[in-house]
Amino acid sequence: MYIVCSDLEGVFTPEVWINVAEKTGISELRRTTRDEPDYEKLMRWRMRILDEHGLKLHDIQNVIAQIEPLPGALEFIQWIKERTQLIVVSDTFIQFAEPLMKKLGRPTLFCHSLVMDDTNRIIDFKLRQPDPKRRTVEALQGLRYQVIAMGDSYNDVSMLRQAEEGILFRPPQNVIDEYPHFPVTYDYEEIKGILSRFIG
Amino acid sequence: MYIVCSDLEGVFTPEVWINVAEKTGISELRRTTRDEPDYEKLMRWRMRILDEHGLKLHDIQNVIAQIEPLPGALEFIQWIKERTQLIVVSDTFIQFAEPLMKKLGRPTLFCHSLVMDDTNRIIDFKLRQPDPKRRTVEALQGLRYQVIAMGDSYNDVSMLRQAEEGILFRPPQNVIDEYPHFPVTYDYEEIKGILSRFIG
Repeated sequence: MYIVCSDLEGVFTPEVWINVAEKTGISELRRTTRDEPDYEKLMRWRMRILDEHGLKLHDIQNVIAQIEPLPGALEFIQWIKERTQLIVVSDTFIQFAEPLMKKLGRPTLFCHSLVMDDTNRIIDFKLRQPDPKRRTVEALQGLRYQVIAMGDSYNDVSMLRQAEEGILFRPPQNVIDEYPHFPVTYDYEEIKGILSRFIG
Repeated sequence: MYIVCSDLEGVFTPEVWINVAEKTGISELRRTTRDEPDYEKLMRWRMRILDEHGLKLHDIQNVIAQIEPLPGALEFIQWIKERTQLIVVSDTFIQFAEPLMKKLGRPTLFCHSLVMDDTNRIIDFKLRQPDPKRRTVEALQGLRYQVIAMGDSYNDVSMLRQAEEGILFRPPQNVIDEYPHFPVTYDYEEIKGILSRFIG
């Protein structure tokens, strides 16, 4: 039995922080793991910036609520769920993902979580475990599923490698160059063509 | 982070085989694991009965499509999914569950699968692994989730015991007597009261 594990941002939604940077006008928030490869360090830095601008969780959630999923993402998710099970695996935080998950029909999401104080200020975050995407694939394989993994970026590669089938969706050129054995897709029809071989 | 693992039949839907027996008029199909504790043996027996009556997968699916989820089940599932992630874990087969899952908004389902021949006749089944409910809870704990498990019957007990929190929903009296330490609930409002302590 096949199951699908997919990244969130870049596959079903735009990049959240880039949109938050644009919609809040705080251009520093455009900084990503390409600029600061240490994700914890990057997140602490982002939290400091939010704090400096007096932004609380609900402010960020209001901004994220204005972001729309990628065109066709909801229909693509429905298409997958009519054929098999889908687990979305992301390095985002459940509280940030919430407004987008609602628009996507709430597929199951495995991700991290934020800690707020009584005033709704973000004071900390909890990363669930190291390499959570690969670990999710392993856990599903332990439940005797064969996994088809989809992702767009470097932080998806360990998941794609662990899976029985790994598919890149709109990846940057350097990821294509470094991992030439993964099929590369650019739209949902194309990726559905590959998925159909396994989930009918 | 808490995640909810729930049984399907008895919690969100009526018992499928009892309904199939009633709607097809084949009373032998009322036989359950209470009469034949060996699930594989029971399933082979059920398949033979279906075959004797010339019933194919789509006939059974048409019957199952007439079954409605328990009143309030869809709203209860939505309530859970607004607060955390939900994995439904069942000893049913994906092809049987499909018409009911559609009515429940397609929460993620871990279960078994049937094998059909070219004429849609059910010729075999694949049980994913032994003790799949407990194994699912263990896998999620390995992903650093704390699990709240809900179920109604004997085959849910290993899942409820493995979980951080186990809740019985409309269980038979003998299960209550044998496992008196699990909270017992009889309607969704009552179970939501318990869930609210963990998933706010």
